[in-house]
Amino acid sequence: MAKNKIENLEVGQYYEQEFVVTEEMGEEFAKISKDFNPIHLDEKAAAQTRFKKKIVHGMLMASYISGIIGNEFPGEGSVYMGQNLSFRGPVYYNNKVIVRVEVTEINLEKKRLKLSTTCRNENEELLILGDALVMLDN
Amino acid sequence: MAKNKIENLEVGQYYEQEFVVTEEMGEEFAKISKDFNPIHLDEKAAAQTRFKKKIVHGMLMASYISGIIGNEFPGEGSVYMGQNLSFRGPVYYNNKVIVRVEVTEINLEKKRLKLSTTCRNENEELLILGDALVMLDN
Repeated sequence: MAKNKIENLEVGQYYEQEFVVTEEMGEEFAKISKDFNPIHLDEKAAAQTRFKKKIVHGMLMASYISGIIGNEFPGEGSVYMGQNLSFRGPVYYNNKVIVRVEVTEINLEKKRLKLSTTCRNENEELLILGDALVMLDN
Repeated sequence: MAKNKIENLEVGQYYEQEFVVTEEMGEEFAKISKDFNPIHLDEKAAAQTRFKKKIVHGMLMASYISGIIGNEFPGEGSVYMGQNLSFRGPVYYNNKVIVRVEVTEINLEKKRLKLSTTCRNENEELLILGDALVMLDN
């Protein structure tokens, strides 16, 4: 588990991690989240939608963002205050997704950080856009 | 799976569902989300934090919100465009949490809905506050 002190962070600093979600992981996430929407699980039903294929639960990607913030960057001591998510494009199973968390604002007095949080595919297309508000009191 | 047509929805209409997250569910969510932050999993580490006890992953609660939107209210045909989340208070294991999704704006022309999304505990304390943007094209 990483630990970054707010005094040592700079605007523009970032952390990136790649994820590939398999259909089995999607089924597991459906069980735990109780979200059995066929768009995530049923190829035939998904074929009838604008996305043509099954798509990964957006909140699974958001969970990866949350995991990076709490565990890696900034890591230990992060208190997650808020997260905005804009779902711009579908995340498909078995495709590589790059999650990036980047410092955009630092408030040393309030010990708060604003982080840009994005998910992109291999073609650099933006799939999820948003930002996180974190208090970093370590 | 429920299906609500946008023409039949009204501002103020809502759906509520209760959830109780056990520690086992938290451990399962940690595995699938790769978020092993000790604040969710380690009683001793959590005791050192402002929350005093282990807390449920915020994104698990957000996943329940997402599940309600996609499956129940509005349900079938919902395209999840965005979600804002403000984490106001800790969700503790084995405590009842009431998730509420309420229609706050309807745009018939664009087929878009704004939904208020909240998580409260049994004492009516607001734990998670936010809103969702949904396209409902069914």
